[in-house]
Amino acid sequence: MSELIIIGQKAKEASYELSIASTEQKDNALILMAEELINAKNDIIKANEIDLETAKSKGTSEAMLDRLALCDDRIKGMADGLKDVVKLQDPIGEVISMWQRPNGLQIGQKRVPLGVIGIIYEARPNVTCDAAGLCLKTGNSVILRGGSEAINSNKAIVKALVKGMEKAGLPKESVQLIEDTSREVATEMMRLNEFIDVLIPRGGAGLIQAVLKNATVPVIETGTGNCHIYIDENCDFEMAKDITVNAKASRPSVCNSAEKLLVNEKIAGEFLPTVVKALRENGVAVKGDDASQTIINDIEKTSEEDWGKEYLDYVMAVKIVKDVDEAITHINKYGTGHSEAIVTESYKNSQKFLQRVDAAAVYVNASTRFTDGSEFGFGAEIGISTQKLHARGPMGLKELTTIKYIIYGNGQIR
Amino acid sequence: MSELIIIGQKAKEASYELSIASTEQKDNALILMAEELINAKNDIIKANEIDLETAKSKGTSEAMLDRLALCDDRIKGMADGLKDVVKLQDPIGEVISMWQRPNGLQIGQKRVPLGVIGIIYEARPNVTCDAAGLCLKTGNSVILRGGSEAINSNKAIVKALVKGMEKAGLPKESVQLIEDTSREVATEMMRLNEFIDVLIPRGGAGLIQAVLKNATVPVIETGTGNCHIYIDENCDFEMAKDITVNAKASRPSVCNSAEKLLVNEKIAGEFLPTVVKALRENGVAVKGDDASQTIINDIEKTSEEDWGKEYLDYVMAVKIVKDVDEAITHINKYGTGHSEAIVTESYKNSQKFLQRVDAAAVYVNASTRFTDGSEFGFGAEIGISTQKLHARGPMGLKELTTIKYIIYGNGQIR
Repeated sequence: MSELIIIGQKAKEASYELSIASTEQKDNALILMAEELINAKNDIIKANEIDLETAKSKGTSEAMLDRLALCDDRIKGMADGLKDVVKLQDPIGEVISMWQRPNGLQIGQKRVPLGVIGIIYEARPNVTCDAAGLCLKTGNSVILRGGSEAINSNKAIVKALVKGMEKAGLPKESVQLIEDTSREVATEMMRLNEFIDVLIPRGGAGLIQAVLKNATVPVIETGTGNCHIYIDENCDFEMAKDITVNAKASRPSVCNSAEKLLVNEKIAGEFLPTVVKALRENGVAVKGDDASQTIINDIEKTSEEDWGKEYLDYVMAVKIVKDVDEAITHINKYGTGHSEAIVTESYKNSQKFLQRVDAAAVYVNASTRFTDGSEFGFGAEIGISTQKLHARGPMGLKELTTIKYIIYGNGQIR
Repeated sequence: MSELIIIGQKAKEASYELSIASTEQKDNALILMAEELINAKNDIIKANEIDLETAKSKGTSEAMLDRLALCDDRIKGMADGLKDVVKLQDPIGEVISMWQRPNGLQIGQKRVPLGVIGIIYEARPNVTCDAAGLCLKTGNSVILRGGSEAINSNKAIVKALVKGMEKAGLPKESVQLIEDTSREVATEMMRLNEFIDVLIPRGGAGLIQAVLKNATVPVIETGTGNCHIYIDENCDFEMAKDITVNAKASRPSVCNSAEKLLVNEKIAGEFLPTVVKALRENGVAVKGDDASQTIINDIEKTSEEDWGKEYLDYVMAVKIVKDVDEAITHINKYGTGHSEAIVTESYKNSQKFLQRVDAAAVYVNASTRFTDGSEFGFGAEIGISTQKLHARGPMGLKELTTIKYIIYGNGQIR
């Protein structure tokens, strides 16, 4: 029997125990896990140094090294994250609705854990801790498969978390790390339908596509965001400029940042120079279609390929559109179904945009950067779903649950 | 470009139109589709005769021929089914919740169609009509891929449905049938992520496993039911017998019928003879483990393989268990997460069973046969989900929807 099957079996067994743990028990475990994380600080930093050395010797980029690096503050941040989860309401056990049938059967929908959640992620070791905390609070056991770059850090973190878990009297197999970071084992994990209920990949587009292609376990697709801001004919230019600059330049590396700016042709001549100036002042390189080049002659020309691209960088492409209908058609064709915004003072166009744009989050007069579990008020987030099944948009605790029907009878037969 | 890609593109375009169609328009289309179905009755029956002839020449079983066969009554049944969908509440447009954030953003969760639904199914041509009706009511376009055995019947049915759809002014590509029933095209369909949002396989375990293995489009797994009835120590024997017989023998070919009977050892000596007699009177062959053979000596011995099996036939296997805990462990190990029942007068054991059994529907003192969209009060059903993502248990109209976040701002940036 492969080691992974043993991990799977143990995770499944642990999930049955976790599913009946009280909120008190789970919260107590979260606090103890936070404590053990702080206690193990030095070990974690030592392990992280090994990972950093290896990464440096491979010529890893500064940005990547920064993602990988742990320090006192970052470990405290992880511990505080676990304590924050304590404050969130436990969704498990809620009976969402219950009704009675003419034959007297009483049928209820009860919120229960998913069971075993698999997380496949890349370099950032804080995901290890965040995911473990959210899965525990929702009564799920978790199998973590982080990247090889962070394997020593991840081992040290999981060791501390498990210690806290055991002190709280919960099964230590509630959080397990796959230590073999080979591609073969990752693929085996994606097909472990018998034991894993859901797989959540967290990372770049390459990772997510690989999981979607290979997994037979149900997957929640997260991440890719080719987001648009559409500036309508009738709008507040100052607001339009501020929203565009914020959506693009406040943090270009994240999925809810805007990549494309669509401008109504009737106001393009007046609006475009202002917004391009502001974008450039914020370090953004602006590209544009033919029509926008006639207004701003020193911008790089876009190609067809640009419209589907997620730059994740200080780059924004501009397209002049005839009206809100062309904007909607363009977005539905090229967008990734993440976050889309209109800036308008037209009631009719705001409603049309809200109704017809096919995306997880559709905004009127606000920046796309708000698509985030904390900003939505969920307190925490395990990722942002860009698929339509199960969860769409920021996934908080509720999205880590499923329901079961509980039926009270008194001898009914059919 | 393959024909399937063209079908996919058209379905996606149609889905945008359907998503903004009013309930009135959709209901009107359902009525016109029902009318056209009756108008095309003779054509449908003629087409069905060709399918039946081909099937007979291939030596198809009587049971299969019966599933395939259409007659006046069955076509009227399909038309009535469409009219019944008119009466169901349209779930689209409901804003499930809406809240305001400290920064003034107003965030709502709105129920919207999934988009394009793919249905892969086998011989029964009525699925063509049922699926089309439920998808239309929920504003989804549908791509149907039925079995080759029913291709002529399916073509004739879809032709009639499309006629009704067009008369109602809705896009004719809302319902499309894939006429090439080759395995290659089915596999291509399972990977059409760009255009299909969800795939629902309806049919036997072989079909469902093939879809799970090959699909990259998100799948809702339906169907397999290895369901158990557990008879607790303290219970009403008459009720226990009636529930067991009903769950097994009222319709053994369906997924919510029971396959296994677990009996508490303290009452097995008294209860088993009665229930086995009743099962046999209803044509059921009873198998049993060693312990049950000591009570009923003329029953066939079970093997390990039996416990995971879905017989879908007049066969039931009996196992004697120590207590409710052993029953729960056995069910969680061998069950398929469909429907599970306990018969008991013990409050404590009823609660334990409801809480710890990991299945879509968990019953106290009622037959598993109630796991069904109509019996639950949903009015209709597209299948019974045995997975935990998105939908679990009978899937009604709501399960054919997703949500999108609609966000009203007044210039918020982050």
